[in-house]
Amino acid sequence: MVISLNEPLDMHLHLREGRMLDIVAPYSALTFSGALVMPNLVPPLTTKEAVLKYKSQIVEAGGNDKFVPYMTLFFRSDYTYEFLASVKEQIVAIKLYPAGITTNSEEGVSGFDIGELAPVLDAMSDLRIPLCIHGETDGFVMDREAEFIPIYRKIAENFPNLKIIMEHITTKEAVAALEDFDNLYATITLHHLYITLDDVAGGLLQPHLFCKPIAKRPEDRAALLEAALQAHPKVMFGSDSAPHPKETKEAPGCAAGVFTAPIALQALAQLFDNHGALDRLQTFVSDNARRIYGINPPKKEVLLEKSLYLVPEIYEATVVPMFAGQSLEWRVVGAQ
Amino acid sequence: MVISLNEPLDMHLHLREGRMLDIVAPYSALTFSGALVMPNLVPPLTTKEAVLKYKSQIVEAGGNDKFVPYMTLFFRSDYTYEFLASVKEQIVAIKLYPAGITTNSEEGVSGFDIGELAPVLDAMSDLRIPLCIHGETDGFVMDREAEFIPIYRKIAENFPNLKIIMEHITTKEAVAALEDFDNLYATITLHHLYITLDDVAGGLLQPHLFCKPIAKRPEDRAALLEAALQAHPKVMFGSDSAPHPKETKEAPGCAAGVFTAPIALQALAQLFDNHGALDRLQTFVSDNARRIYGINPPKKEVLLEKSLYLVPEIYEATVVPMFAGQSLEWRVVGAQ
Repeated sequence: MVISLNEPLDMHLHLREGRMLDIVAPYSALTFSGALVMPNLVPPLTTKEAVLKYKSQIVEAGGNDKFVPYMTLFFRSDYTYEFLASVKEQIVAIKLYPAGITTNSEEGVSGFDIGELAPVLDAMSDLRIPLCIHGETDGFVMDREAEFIPIYRKIAENFPNLKIIMEHITTKEAVAALEDFDNLYATITLHHLYITLDDVAGGLLQPHLFCKPIAKRPEDRAALLEAALQAHPKVMFGSDSAPHPKETKEAPGCAAGVFTAPIALQALAQLFDNHGALDRLQTFVSDNARRIYGINPPKKEVLLEKSLYLVPEIYEATVVPMFAGQSLEWRVVGAQ
Repeated sequence: MVISLNEPLDMHLHLREGRMLDIVAPYSALTFSGALVMPNLVPPLTTKEAVLKYKSQIVEAGGNDKFVPYMTLFFRSDYTYEFLASVKEQIVAIKLYPAGITTNSEEGVSGFDIGELAPVLDAMSDLRIPLCIHGETDGFVMDREAEFIPIYRKIAENFPNLKIIMEHITTKEAVAALEDFDNLYATITLHHLYITLDDVAGGLLQPHLFCKPIAKRPEDRAALLEAALQAHPKVMFGSDSAPHPKETKEAPGCAAGVFTAPIALQALAQLFDNHGALDRLQTFVSDNARRIYGINPPKKEVLLEKSLYLVPEIYEATVVPMFAGQSLEWRVVGAQ
């Protein structure tokens, strides 16, 4: 059996810089038409020049003219309207991180005072720039996302013309919140559709499945699966693929992040196939994002065949992917 | 300030075998009068000969005539009354593991059919041999202990003359269950009084704090702390100190276990001191266990002084302890 996906999009991607960028970018560029690129570099992307420079580095590293890096800016509450207007054409969204909540987020937002955020959020509403949010509090690790929902609600209520994307949602509470506000959307990762905390710490400890937000409970994964498999119109695929060098992941103090970019479409095809939902994969992995973001990615048709695919143990002796050394039931057999 | 503890007891201890036994046993033997030694070796301790042989290895490795290893037998539902009667003088308790639930528990019990367990549990009641249980189901990692409580209840109800010890409890549900049955007791570890899942996976991933049962929620730790600090009469200290070689702990697939034996009394003194409960430490760390188990450990007075103690990064280049490289506020200044 062969299926075809048109213009697959990864609406949440970490590409890093330097050698890591060179290693990982070609994999996303091969099987995706475009990806929303996260701005949490060191220092974070906060100027037009930095965005343009990083974009050109990605294009060069990706080496594929049918792949567009959709750029984001790192949210700051002191951006001016003029600055946002001037950078609008170079970006597709602005990403807001609570300070210190994940890798390279130290310069993010502390507290969520609507008055303080209002000038920038009003400008974004006016300029039609979507707001992507890493929605976690600094509370207990299993509660952080659910505790953040009231902040999503507050922003969604106060800025009804702002498109707000709850990034990499992991809880049934976040799925439920989608129904309450027209302007609230979400991305869901591959790994949160597959794993719960059991897979990270229920048997032996698995650092390569350690991520933020941490994988949650079975009922949370069930809610995510239901939203993804029905291709809920407000939900997009965003891998949150986050490469770290093997030696960093496997040392004590392992950083958060699961590397999924090269195997994401194969593993999604397997998942949707196993749930009898293959006919909705196109919508989940492309159509919803095109509509929500109003983007028009380059034409690309990716062919996937139902036959065993052995996932590499490691890429370029550096990055260990999800499903390393395991078999997936679907493989990519063409992308053009 | 100096305090004195008489006959400290660690009522849940893993000592391993071979070189690891030689490394860790002297630390327990130095500051404790006795310890309840777990039987989950490979193969598990299921014969009198194995128990006696292991006991003599421990005595030799410990090298301290004021330390008694209180031996346990690995629970099997096919033990005969005659066997149990013949081994009774060599052991202090029998330890029951659900099959496959933790390190070297593959030969444990599957299912908890009272009819199947009854002959052995009746014999243990009759012979006054306490039953220690690792109480976890194979459910979701955060729920396993709470889900096991009905099994504790069923056994406690059906065998009212059997002393049942809920080992290394980690939840408020287990603390609450203590009040419901006269014959239900518990041990609490050092690390579960200090950490929650946040410390394991809330920031960077910390394999040296990865243990089973996994550290739970803040309200669970609060319940454990309350029981320990009041020296609840049905609660005993049991470190569950579980050494693994550094390279095993720091590799992907890290085994569960926190090594606390050498620093347990210091860290307990700090904890009880910080909560104004130093006067109850003696009861928590010795008196309750003596009464519950009816044991009479060798006289030993351990002196602890309130002054900074730098915990070693590693012991004999092999085992990393809890608090490695950090300072504790109390040190051991004498043990005789």
